[in-house]
Amino acid sequence: MSTPKIVRTKKELQTHVQRWHRAGQKVGLVPTMGALHHGHLSLVDYIAHSVDKIIATIFVNPTQFGAGEDLDSYPRQEKQDLEALSRTACDLVFIPDASEIYPDGFSTTVSLSGITEILEGAKRPGHFDGVATVVTKLLLMSRCNVAVFGEKDYQQLAVIKQVTKDLDLPVTILGAPLIREKDGLAASSRNAYLSEKERAIAAHLNQVLKECVTLIHTGTPLREAERIARQSLLDIGFESIDYITIVDPTSLKQLDSVTDINTARLLAVARLGRVRLLDNMPV
Amino acid sequence: MSTPKIVRTKKELQTHVQRWHRAGQKVGLVPTMGALHHGHLSLVDYIAHSVDKIIATIFVNPTQFGAGEDLDSYPRQEKQDLEALSRTACDLVFIPDASEIYPDGFSTTVSLSGITEILEGAKRPGHFDGVATVVTKLLLMSRCNVAVFGEKDYQQLAVIKQVTKDLDLPVTILGAPLIREKDGLAASSRNAYLSEKERAIAAHLNQVLKECVTLIHTGTPLREAERIARQSLLDIGFESIDYITIVDPTSLKQLDSVTDINTARLLAVARLGRVRLLDNMPV
Repeated sequence: MSTPKIVRTKKELQTHVQRWHRAGQKVGLVPTMGALHHGHLSLVDYIAHSVDKIIATIFVNPTQFGAGEDLDSYPRQEKQDLEALSRTACDLVFIPDASEIYPDGFSTTVSLSGITEILEGAKRPGHFDGVATVVTKLLLMSRCNVAVFGEKDYQQLAVIKQVTKDLDLPVTILGAPLIREKDGLAASSRNAYLSEKERAIAAHLNQVLKECVTLIHTGTPLREAERIARQSLLDIGFESIDYITIVDPTSLKQLDSVTDINTARLLAVARLGRVRLLDNMPV
Repeated sequence: MSTPKIVRTKKELQTHVQRWHRAGQKVGLVPTMGALHHGHLSLVDYIAHSVDKIIATIFVNPTQFGAGEDLDSYPRQEKQDLEALSRTACDLVFIPDASEIYPDGFSTTVSLSGITEILEGAKRPGHFDGVATVVTKLLLMSRCNVAVFGEKDYQQLAVIKQVTKDLDLPVTILGAPLIREKDGLAASSRNAYLSEKERAIAAHLNQVLKECVTLIHTGTPLREAERIARQSLLDIGFESIDYITIVDPTSLKQLDSVTDINTARLLAVARLGRVRLLDNMPV
């Protein structure tokens, strides 16, 4: 482990990758928006088993933030991020300016129907178009062989798998397990926004989802299990529940019956103060 | 020159390309919708100077045809196309079914703002989204190094160059010169739709465009030169003129003054019967 090299232009990035490819080395990409926590660092550990060289990217992508979202206040801490990455197997960090990703005249959007219009997509119109476009660009401009994304943002992972398949991007997409704090709260850059009191309530989200899975396994109909979990969260002190739903893990369409349970995923978003807390698990 | 090998699946296509790449060979792609004429065949000749192996694709892409356009009647003549390709340097022909390009669950669209909304894009809403999506797929699924498109469909070429730049597609795009019949008519699969009488009128489109360029070179203001050319075409017997316009060759935005002339392009579409005749030339 040593301080990874930093590059800020596509040209420098491709020079390194080209050298690695010529040496027959497999290259992995870990796209991030910075504000790295141990969830992000686990992505580096996860992809290390599949590749010879690892690139992390730090880019707060403006096109995936909607009007009124936290683009301006999103945490930026390059120095701490680089220190954190220096304790991992990361070889190179790509930190482009927005003008390097979206030069003058840029006019292309990659969009998906269906999967981007539900759940997070319904709450954040245009969000997944921004994600699909920037990820397509990062995967292609880096010439990487493998890229990893966390299961924490489960719908984002599903969207990226779909666009990779649809456009025949020459990259293998890995989904890495969600990383939790000791009390079960899913690790997230936005947890920093929680007050102490909210932080204590937040830990219960994971507990309620586990109970919901148990209810399903003991035969509770899916809609009833969802309803019970929703009420539990409100009783515990969550302000509102955007959704709690059992879905197909590829299309993210809500499932109706227990016959599909073997491949089902439970997704939930609950609100506390200004924070939307995301969590999910296999059923 | 010999009969090229035919493949119909992505898997077969990639097996061949992978073998060529391992041997250090550069691979070129010539995407077509079939109904090949000597304009298409010239694309194979053109790319042969830049690559070691050449793939032609024949795929009538449904998503670039609008409602009421000629998808169903578009000429399909696989046997003649293969005979024509066997007289070129083409090594492999990829002829996929629609389900090979758009399998169940396919949900991605690549779209561009600005350049796709004017000229042909204004006449054919959604057309260039279909083109951008299928070309992105063909470039990526073939793993080609170079691809060639004709300057005949000048706006299509400009859209493909833009999307290749915007998404960092790892492919060099070549534009090959427009090929004309003896009388100057731009070669096109849709010329087959012309009656004998229409065919005689059609040849004048190229002549009028050349006269328009001469007018510009001798100091005629651009709008006036366009107006004179439009009236000439109507006088000769063209039924209507969709546009005749002098544009920037990258953005395709209409130019206002002669200071930009060094890099200007004259684009025109005139109608005869059911055919829209496209032509263009440098100014």
